[in-house]
Amino acid sequence: MEHDFPALPEGTVTSPIGFSASATYAGLKKPGGEGVLDVGLLCSDVPCVAAGVFTTNRVRAAPVLLCQQRLAKATAQALVVNAGCANACTGPQGMANAVSMAEAAAKTLGLPPENVLVASTGVIGQPLPIERLREAIGRMTPTRDGGHDLARAIMTTDTSPKEIAVEVAIGEATATVAGIAKGSGMICPNMATMLAFLTTDAAVDAALARAALREAVDESFNMVAVDNDTSTNDMVLLLANGLAGNEPLQAGSEYAAVFQAALRQVCVHLARWIARDGEGATKLMEVTVEGALTLDQARAAARTVATSSLVKAAIHGNDPNWGRIAAAVGRSGAEMDWSKTDLYLEGLCLVRGGCPEQFSQPQVRRLLSAAEVRVKVCLNLGAESATAWGCDLSAEYVRINADYLT
Amino acid sequence: MEHDFPALPEGTVTSPIGFSASATYAGLKKPGGEGVLDVGLLCSDVPCVAAGVFTTNRVRAAPVLLCQQRLAKATAQALVVNAGCANACTGPQGMANAVSMAEAAAKTLGLPPENVLVASTGVIGQPLPIERLREAIGRMTPTRDGGHDLARAIMTTDTSPKEIAVEVAIGEATATVAGIAKGSGMICPNMATMLAFLTTDAAVDAALARAALREAVDESFNMVAVDNDTSTNDMVLLLANGLAGNEPLQAGSEYAAVFQAALRQVCVHLARWIARDGEGATKLMEVTVEGALTLDQARAAARTVATSSLVKAAIHGNDPNWGRIAAAVGRSGAEMDWSKTDLYLEGLCLVRGGCPEQFSQPQVRRLLSAAEVRVKVCLNLGAESATAWGCDLSAEYVRINADYLT
Repeated sequence: MEHDFPALPEGTVTSPIGFSASATYAGLKKPGGEGVLDVGLLCSDVPCVAAGVFTTNRVRAAPVLLCQQRLAKATAQALVVNAGCANACTGPQGMANAVSMAEAAAKTLGLPPENVLVASTGVIGQPLPIERLREAIGRMTPTRDGGHDLARAIMTTDTSPKEIAVEVAIGEATATVAGIAKGSGMICPNMATMLAFLTTDAAVDAALARAALREAVDESFNMVAVDNDTSTNDMVLLLANGLAGNEPLQAGSEYAAVFQAALRQVCVHLARWIARDGEGATKLMEVTVEGALTLDQARAAARTVATSSLVKAAIHGNDPNWGRIAAAVGRSGAEMDWSKTDLYLEGLCLVRGGCPEQFSQPQVRRLLSAAEVRVKVCLNLGAESATAWGCDLSAEYVRINADYLT
Repeated sequence: MEHDFPALPEGTVTSPIGFSASATYAGLKKPGGEGVLDVGLLCSDVPCVAAGVFTTNRVRAAPVLLCQQRLAKATAQALVVNAGCANACTGPQGMANAVSMAEAAAKTLGLPPENVLVASTGVIGQPLPIERLREAIGRMTPTRDGGHDLARAIMTTDTSPKEIAVEVAIGEATATVAGIAKGSGMICPNMATMLAFLTTDAAVDAALARAALREAVDESFNMVAVDNDTSTNDMVLLLANGLAGNEPLQAGSEYAAVFQAALRQVCVHLARWIARDGEGATKLMEVTVEGALTLDQARAAARTVATSSLVKAAIHGNDPNWGRIAAAVGRSGAEMDWSKTDLYLEGLCLVRGGCPEQFSQPQVRRLLSAAEVRVKVCLNLGAESATAWGCDLSAEYVRINADYLT
């Protein structure tokens, strides 16, 4: 079931009823950088049902560990976030600093500290300048239109803030599902971190919030890759405050699937944007694998193509080099029989049943020069399909990640 | 047990007794490219015990499938190889062409066709110009010093031929173990293929040949990565003709471990060379992981660091960005406890027990500017260790793989 819920003009994470946000600077991105937003607050007027999905990296930043602890009770009311310093690999002091950030935010907002979540992105292995940060947190006053600033504050090498809000009818009520994200850009000298914060005024019980978030993330953020490096700080958080007034949704209830679809739409929108805005990217690559034996295999195959350096470099150069796509699927772990496989670039069939079709190189090169390029592989073995998003690999990616100090 | 067997000056695949080789051109690398070697023969005076290790890609080129069939009997006497066309994704005609290459070589050498192995590297999805190729194969006369030409003929974007031979005493006899390889360079428009051909005049039984090759490959070629793309054509072949006159080696016999060590040395030498000569590479990166719980985990962690685009880009830029190394180990699947982990760059400890050490950025940058850079991660959890080899990621890699036609 595909939905296309209407997106609100200028929609952002404070579009749902009862959410407010603010952002300011603490000189984390730029020493003494007045006006360069790098700290933010997001809060709800009332306590929220809360859920999170976190990095699978065994090295986890202090804020990730703190959020995982605090989400055991499935409630939260606010989030404090900074960019410019990941607070990762920082030992016991790092955890103390994460707790201290939450405390400062709780004081500003007049909330119990344990209801405040914490996120960080930026340089690994450096301590947070916690006093400067606490001072900055004390300066903020969240407002209903503060979401845009928050979306800017979490950016690192992102070239644009990423925000969306969609409306969804849940019985008599109209709810809003919204989100902001920062992409797989890196801040010098740092590694990619993906952060996404989702809000909704829909009333949702904790079990559904968790399950719906997990499913939406699996179909969106987990299908995005810029460079295949999983950060120590990745997190996706969902806050649902229930102020839309709908009958609380739970698994199996009439509108649960509608809510799930809206959440998926928001996540996919943000995920695609992250891919398109990958470091050095000049275009979005959408890879769909159809006819796989299992969903896991379809996802693995789509992701492997989307992350192959060779495929990404070929797409960058508008090179119809389908052999690289075949080889990527072949090493993905998905069952495949090359003699049954079809392969398409931008809708044009290049391989049918494992046999190369005649095609015009200049035509395919023209098709590949678009801002979004679609790759489709039909395995013709089963009924499962999946889509992954990535970007091309450019010399600019190398420049950003190698020459940052020179 | 580390050995350092003496390398023969100008040693190559025809250094062991009874091996000869030849190379010529068939216009595969360069249309009408007289003098550009792209076809070669390797043969032994007598039948050899033979073993092979092949790509794990589910899409396998015709020569890979043919070699796998022919090695069931564990004997072979010759090899015919071409560069410039991978004969992959070419359907039934591709297999017929591989068989035809072997036939032509068998005719040239006066051998039964089923004793000839076949390897190809180059463009995927294009048919071999089989008549031109057969004509070229008919032109060759293998000689004792033809190994150097063969090493050149299999090159694609490699910048140098890769060859080595070492001497090893086996009881009263002196045997030679030798090899040539081509690296993870790509030929336009193609994907990486790794080929290595190993010869020895040691007498080895089939079971030991297989087991020794598997083990040597696991410690060498399987620990090399330029871009993590497993080719449809990768293969490593071992031919042992027994002409050194030693008592045939079998598993558990006195000199089996010595033979194993010599084979390992040859493979590691070639593997390191492949990494150093990766496309666009300006330096070799050697990653050692110590103190892992299992060997598989040690290998996975070392390989993940060596293939991380972010680590590779940092090494390219002489950037002491150890956070990226920590994050790569953390996502490798290896058990780790960051608070126990030590991390070294070029012997300098940057992290001890999960805590960053003070270090001079300019000093580390100087250390990283060497032609070979060593990364060491001590997990301090167990007794297993492994080493992987990779190269830095440069803008030149992107140029080679994106802009080949423009």
